[in-house]
Amino acid sequence: MCGIFGVANHSEASNLTYLGLYALQHRGQESAGIVSSDGEDLYKIRKRKQVSDSFDEKSFAFLKGDFSIGHVRYSTTGGNSYTNVQPFQASGKFGKLAIAHNGNLTNYFSLKSKLEDKGVIFQSTSDTEIILHLVAQSEGKSIFDKIEDAVKKIDGAFSLMFLTKDSVIAVRDPQGFRPLIMGKVNNSYVFSSESCAFDLIGAEYIREVEPGEIVEVSRDGKINTKTYHKPTPANCVFEHVYFGRPDSVIFSETAYEVRKNLGRELAKENKIDADFVIPVPDSGNFAALGYSEESKIPFEFGFIRNHYVGRTFIEPKQSIRGFGVKVKLNPVKETLKGKRVIVIDDSIVRGTTSKKIIKMIRDAGAKEITLLISSPPFIKPCFYGIDTPSEAELIAANHSMKEICNYIEADHLAYLSMDGMFRAIKKDSKSFCTACFTGKYPTPVDGHTML
Amino acid sequence: MCGIFGVANHSEASNLTYLGLYALQHRGQESAGIVSSDGEDLYKIRKRKQVSDSFDEKSFAFLKGDFSIGHVRYSTTGGNSYTNVQPFQASGKFGKLAIAHNGNLTNYFSLKSKLEDKGVIFQSTSDTEIILHLVAQSEGKSIFDKIEDAVKKIDGAFSLMFLTKDSVIAVRDPQGFRPLIMGKVNNSYVFSSESCAFDLIGAEYIREVEPGEIVEVSRDGKINTKTYHKPTPANCVFEHVYFGRPDSVIFSETAYEVRKNLGRELAKENKIDADFVIPVPDSGNFAALGYSEESKIPFEFGFIRNHYVGRTFIEPKQSIRGFGVKVKLNPVKETLKGKRVIVIDDSIVRGTTSKKIIKMIRDAGAKEITLLISSPPFIKPCFYGIDTPSEAELIAANHSMKEICNYIEADHLAYLSMDGMFRAIKKDSKSFCTACFTGKYPTPVDGHTML
Amino acid sequence: MCGIFGVANHSEASNLTYLGLYALQHRGQESAGIVSSDGEDLYKIRKRKQVSDSFDEKSFAFLKGDFSIGHVRYSTTGGNSYTNVQPFQASGKFGKLAIAHNGNLTNYFSLKSKLEDKGVIFQSTSDTEIILHLVAQSEGKSIFDKIEDAVKKIDGAFSLMFLTKDSVIAVRDPQGFRPLIMGKVNNSYVFSSESCAFDLIGAEYIREVEPGEIVEVSRDGKINTKTYHKPTPANCVFEHVYFGRPDSVIFSETAYEVRKNLGRELAKENKIDADFVIPVPDSGNFAALGYSEESKIPFEFGFIRNHYVGRTFIEPKQSIRGFGVKVKLNPVKETLKGKRVIVIDDSIVRGTTSKKIIKMIRDAGAKEITLLISSPPFIKPCFYGIDTPSEAELIAANHSMKEICNYIEADHLAYLSMDGMFRAIKKDSKSFCTACFTGKYPTPVDGHTML
Amino acid sequence: MCGIFGVANHSEASNLTYLGLYALQHRGQESAGIVSSDGEDLYKIRKRKQVSDSFDEKSFAFLKGDFSIGHVRYSTTGGNSYTNVQPFQASGKFGKLAIAHNGNLTNYFSLKSKLEDKGVIFQSTSDTEIILHLVAQSEGKSIFDKIEDAVKKIDGAFSLMFLTKDSVIAVRDPQGFRPLIMGKVNNSYVFSSESCAFDLIGAEYIREVEPGEIVEVSRDGKINTKTYHKPTPANCVFEHVYFGRPDSVIFSETAYEVRKNLGRELAKENKIDADFVIPVPDSGNFAALGYSEESKIPFEFGFIRNHYVGRTFIEPKQSIRGFGVKVKLNPVKETLKGKRVIVIDDSIVRGTTSKKIIKMIRDAGAKEITLLISSPPFIKPCFYGIDTPSEAELIAANHSMKEICNYIEADHLAYLSMDGMFRAIKKDSKSFCTACFTGKYPTPVDGHTML
Repeated sequence: MCGIFGVANHSEASNLTYLGLYALQHRGQESAGIVSSDGEDLYKIRKRKQVSDSFDEKSFAFLKGDFSIGHVRYSTTGGNSYTNVQPFQASGKFGKLAIAHNGNLTNYFSLKSKLEDKGVIFQSTSDTEIILHLVAQSEGKSIFDKIEDAVKKIDGAFSLMFLTKDSVIAVRDPQGFRPLIMGKVNNSYVFSSESCAFDLIGAEYIREVEPGEIVEVSRDGKINTKTYHKPTPANCVFEHVYFGRPDSVIFSETAYEVRKNLGRELAKENKIDADFVIPVPDSGNFAALGYSEESKIPFEFGFIRNHYVGRTFIEPKQSIRGFGVKVKLNPVKETLKGKRVIVIDDSIVRGTTSKKIIKMIRDAGAKEITLLISSPPFIKPCFYGIDTPSEAELIAANHSMKEICNYIEADHLAYLSMDGMFRAIKKDSKSFCTACFTGKYPTPVDGHTML
Repeated sequence: MCGIFGVANHSEASNLTYLGLYALQHRGQESAGIVSSDGEDLYKIRKRKQVSDSFDEKSFAFLKGDFSIGHVRYSTTGGNSYTNVQPFQASGKFGKLAIAHNGNLTNYFSLKSKLEDKGVIFQSTSDTEIILHLVAQSEGKSIFDKIEDAVKKIDGAFSLMFLTKDSVIAVRDPQGFRPLIMGKVNNSYVFSSESCAFDLIGAEYIREVEPGEIVEVSRDGKINTKTYHKPTPANCVFEHVYFGRPDSVIFSETAYEVRKNLGRELAKENKIDADFVIPVPDSGNFAALGYSEESKIPFEFGFIRNHYVGRTFIEPKQSIRGFGVKVKLNPVKETLKGKRVIVIDDSIVRGTTSKKIIKMIRDAGAKEITLLISSPPFIKPCFYGIDTPSEAELIAANHSMKEICNYIEADHLAYLSMDGMFRAIKKDSKSFCTACFTGKYPTPVDGHTML
Repeated sequence: MCGIFGVANHSEASNLTYLGLYALQHRGQESAGIVSSDGEDLYKIRKRKQVSDSFDEKSFAFLKGDFSIGHVRYSTTGGNSYTNVQPFQASGKFGKLAIAHNGNLTNYFSLKSKLEDKGVIFQSTSDTEIILHLVAQSEGKSIFDKIEDAVKKIDGAFSLMFLTKDSVIAVRDPQGFRPLIMGKVNNSYVFSSESCAFDLIGAEYIREVEPGEIVEVSRDGKINTKTYHKPTPANCVFEHVYFGRPDSVIFSETAYEVRKNLGRELAKENKIDADFVIPVPDSGNFAALGYSEESKIPFEFGFIRNHYVGRTFIEPKQSIRGFGVKVKLNPVKETLKGKRVIVIDDSIVRGTTSKKIIKMIRDAGAKEITLLISSPPFIKPCFYGIDTPSEAELIAANHSMKEICNYIEADHLAYLSMDGMFRAIKKDSKSFCTACFTGKYPTPVDGHTML
Repeated sequence: MCGIFGVANHSEASNLTYLGLYALQHRGQESAGIVSSDGEDLYKIRKRKQVSDSFDEKSFAFLKGDFSIGHVRYSTTGGNSYTNVQPFQASGKFGKLAIAHNGNLTNYFSLKSKLEDKGVIFQSTSDTEIILHLVAQSEGKSIFDKIEDAVKKIDGAFSLMFLTKDSVIAVRDPQGFRPLIMGKVNNSYVFSSESCAFDLIGAEYIREVEPGEIVEVSRDGKINTKTYHKPTPANCVFEHVYFGRPDSVIFSETAYEVRKNLGRELAKENKIDADFVIPVPDSGNFAALGYSEESKIPFEFGFIRNHYVGRTFIEPKQSIRGFGVKVKLNPVKETLKGKRVIVIDDSIVRGTTSKKIIKMIRDAGAKEITLLISSPPFIKPCFYGIDTPSEAELIAANHSMKEICNYIEADHLAYLSMDGMFRAIKKDSKSFCTACFTGKYPTPVDGHTML
């Protein structure tokens, strides 16, 4: 997953972009990059670090100008080498152009093969580079036209920010898989994956960039928009369930409220006799609260998170039981001892983490443990930008409910139904991509991509 | 504040100490240090970094042996220079000795002056060094006797871990200001400021090191204990209210439960008509939950914490309103808009943070805001190891309730009463130090210290 | 300037490349990079650091395989951003290809413009990238053919190392501006800019890669060579005078001996009465020794070099006379006091350094100072890979001998004549590029390049 | 070995100290430290790095005041832990005091034992700490008196710089083993181990601090000096032969001239038929030049030094012959081939380096190799501050001239005679310590120290 941000016509463009990326850090911690423009040239800084470690005072002196775009990355395609750190930048007959991409293309391999036959070389292994080549190959007159040409050729998920010497251009795929919104701070337009970035910089939310839309903001302040493809909405339901920050407005709904609703629906579908309900922190926090409100079963914090967890951790040779999870979470023994507990999480992927969580609660003395999941079983990989394991590794793709329950060693296990999920979201399921729950992919997917 | 840890007779002593310090990281983030012993020599690594950045695989190869003590530090006396990073180590006619100290001595300056007259030099500005000199000056025969001699001369707060070539020695001051507990992992004894460290390494809690007690565990496995001074308990009530990790057992009570009780008592004393109750994260989490349970007013997360906050942060010149706090916390606008909100925090020190918090909630659209504090007004500085500003800076020392409420711009403000606090703790107030709420200091305090 | 190195069919290819770059470090300290191949894939590490700080044990585990090329860089075109750090790597219909380049193209801008019109994008500002695009655009059947096609289109200086999955390919421009030699270590072929790299790895010198020649060494051990263009030799005379390491064989001559000869010729042309001759360390060392031998005037070390000079240096506000140079060099006062001194250096560029050197010698008490330069006046910029200032900044381009002597405050000044230089080199001047001394550029140079 | 520096009454005291240490870097590369005073407090920065990496602009803002002392260290006693990095600083009834020490005490262990019996603790393993304890134990009235008391009790080599709030105090042992000089920059007094530091900061040399003398410069500008012990000069002859920087005035002679004289005497004692004479760079440079002048045998640079040698170096598994030395030095093959060569070095310690050097020259094709050493055989360890191996490891302590010549595989070997050495120095041998050549130690040496 990735996060993108853009600013047009603001005297501190790169500093605002940095703040925006800071707020979007949860969407990708592998690398961070900003490109700015002052009308003369483009300036670029990219690091394989978190946002707060990537930029300092000197960075903003270097990242001159009043236009800027930025990117935070969690690798999906292409691996984590430096050449894949975004934004990418290139020059061609159209001048200089930078691009930041959230999503994943599903016809990358067939497009790449065609371009190579034309003598095009690839300097990264990221699917994003292909968009730059398509722009360069276009016969379009303006950069706007060239970008339109290019995005009409690509399939899959793409929320894009482009930067030229004199404009910022935002594009969203016809399905609108990934979020992309537009706002205003004073008289400057800003773009972001999520609204939490607008809150931090004090920007006002205006609207979504629509699926199938291109929006250009130029140095003269004019906005140029075009629907380059009829919208066929397929918003990623997982942005609501897990990915978006809870305080963000995602697809026009607050993730916080949606998640509480998921918990409420879970309570309606699963009436269980228990002493209290606890979240797996922080992914189950809001669904657990919603469950508690609906069911009247008290909410407790069953685990305490260690806020000082570092990158690496040296375990003694003489291993400690359940050590890996304990470093991050400690169960509150006095609270759990002898109790019947409902534990709430947002999803089960491989099942290994759930198994450890259940074990910790049981070791802490809980008498009976029910695990409730605030979304349907996760049975298919995502090809639209969320890093998921192969189908073979998805526990729900290959096991019955009972087998999963046995594997994770819970006393009871239940998932929220598909209907329940959409009651919580309060929207028509048809406007969402549910491929991970159903296998119905809204776009064609290259054979090679599916490997 | 600081955290200390010790291990005796364990083949991976330094690795366990590292894990212990990791769990105690909330007690001090300025520096971390470990000293180990293999019966031949003492080995020391100290860094001005957090635990996870201070040690690596090579560290444990260097920190040989089956005895070890460690320290995490948040400076109280002496400033943050490298010479003040603990554990300290020295050699004298008794051989080599290392020391780790949680607390603060109140007769440091008078003792120092006397020792200087004898020709003693001080190489740090920490009060801990004086204990080593007192040990060296003692005529006691064994190191146990020398330490007993030394600790009889010092006043104030001191939970201490000593390491010699062949033993670990734990000492607690007669008041027991700071916690210090004893546990067992397999056949090895361990000591820690808090029980969360025992949970991480899978150790079993045995008992507190008693106020006024010395406990020595030797290489032969024997335990030698002595009450060197009649206990006159004065446990720090703030360890319950704020300092200890919520999942720790502090002074024989789980901090989690105590804090929920503080919230319940707050609800009994303050019946307020509101739409919901929210905590200041994370300091108000448990009291807010207790308040909600008692009052039946729904609990909500009003703020979302950014988990990726770095050390420094570069703000644009054209400053953003309330920026400093927003980097860490974002209010959930959709939840707060138009609502009457109760906000719960553990204390007010200078009032500046509370003011910012209230402002954020109001900017997010709340209609009416009540701030409730789960402890009495903080009116006096602590001389026992908690870093507090001078009395002049403590808002409650110099202003009426009404003035404070006006300053922080809340609609209503209330503190928990002293009686309410002790009802929550369920213990006799006489066994606690309440100096920060009352000005009654349980030990004499040097004039110089009070400056 | 840059240095390049390549290895074919050696089990420790990347480690040998690292050693080779280490020996070539004097040719470029800005960045270092290695790419290796194991027949399956290419592996790349590039850093903006010196060689010894760029690679560690882990690097060689990563840089797998028995083929490898490497590059050290001192920027000429394109600036010092990370995207310009070599080797470059790209993939196309021919598979993966890496390139390392020493030299500078003189028709870069016209080629770039043509390629951009075809829809090609540029991701760096280095002239080397263009070679990759030309290879990709070629209709040649093999990679050897494609490279031949490409290098026939470029003008200027280029000693090149290419790496494919299964071969190393060396190319030199028809003029042979920059050196490139071939050697053998056991049964493996190696390539290097200079022979000092062969000495370090114990390789045997075989021959030069000839001007206008392509040499390919494949996984099967076969060598494939072709003269793609009639050689029109124009070796860079400055490689002899200054750039090459003194212990290297450059264009079939040892730089050490050539430089001593330059000093001898200088002595023949300039008979001066003096107490001794001293070099500007280390650039004048060998010419000074040759001068002393020929003239019988004793050689002395007039300066001592500080071997611990760091990157940055903080000068006191109350500035010290001649401070900048003194940090690196200190004159030996007792030796210089009251003496008539001949100082020898290899060239004068802007004149500022010579001025400081003369001043230091005079401040140390010398009575009479003659500066002799072991090459002719430097009057034109180099467009073939040596970083030189513009003509306006070259002191000899714009001032008479007398004016220069006055500016640098020497008592006497003389340069070696063009004839003297070639007597020293013992080769025909026609086979050398003397553009910096004469303005006769052996290839056409783009107008844009000359800016 | 170590280097020390001090400044009194200069507005940029710490910056000058940094420059002084920079020039003294050859005396110790393990660590660097500066302490300054502004009359209010002492400020200290110490790093286990070279000078240029230890301080930056912020350092000098922190190191306030117009008095300062500094230290560079190459460990002799005590090992390389951070607690041994100098200057040391302590406070006692006399206030704050910092100390920097060049040399080594020979009665450390007996003094330490006595102090420990009095209840003194040691926080480092450096012999320097003991001086601070002796100062603190003194009954002297002023700090000057206390220091006098202390230095009267210690034996061995000690050139010392002390810093108090209001003065810099320099002390030299009665033998004057290590150099220590005094100079003036404008109206401020400066002290340094060597004069090259004065050259860098533009200070004027005044005189040596005499053996057995204490010199205090106070804030009021007054100088207070006292001969606390009759001088019994025993200057370290090795400072002339090897340790001092060639451009420094050491014990009133320029090291450069002394070393050339050593070469001249070597030529008088050893008349050899050879094609040329080459130095082992840089230790043999000046003696080789002197040898050439006296013998009329031409001087050549037989080796080229690689100026980019890093800290660590990764050798291929399939090891290269003579690799370790080759990284630093490369023989000039064309010069050496078929020639009879005299090689000159300053000393042979274990013999291993000489053996590698001879081998390189022979591999480069030399026909006959004579190694000449510009000092007598090194047969005893130094206890006065030069890091030497034990007697068992000194090749000349245990082998005949013929055996050494065989071991290093030279054709001939000769050392300079003791008489020849003192003819070169032009001073009476009685005023020098020659313990490393004779075993006659000028002071008593603790049994423990000799281990």
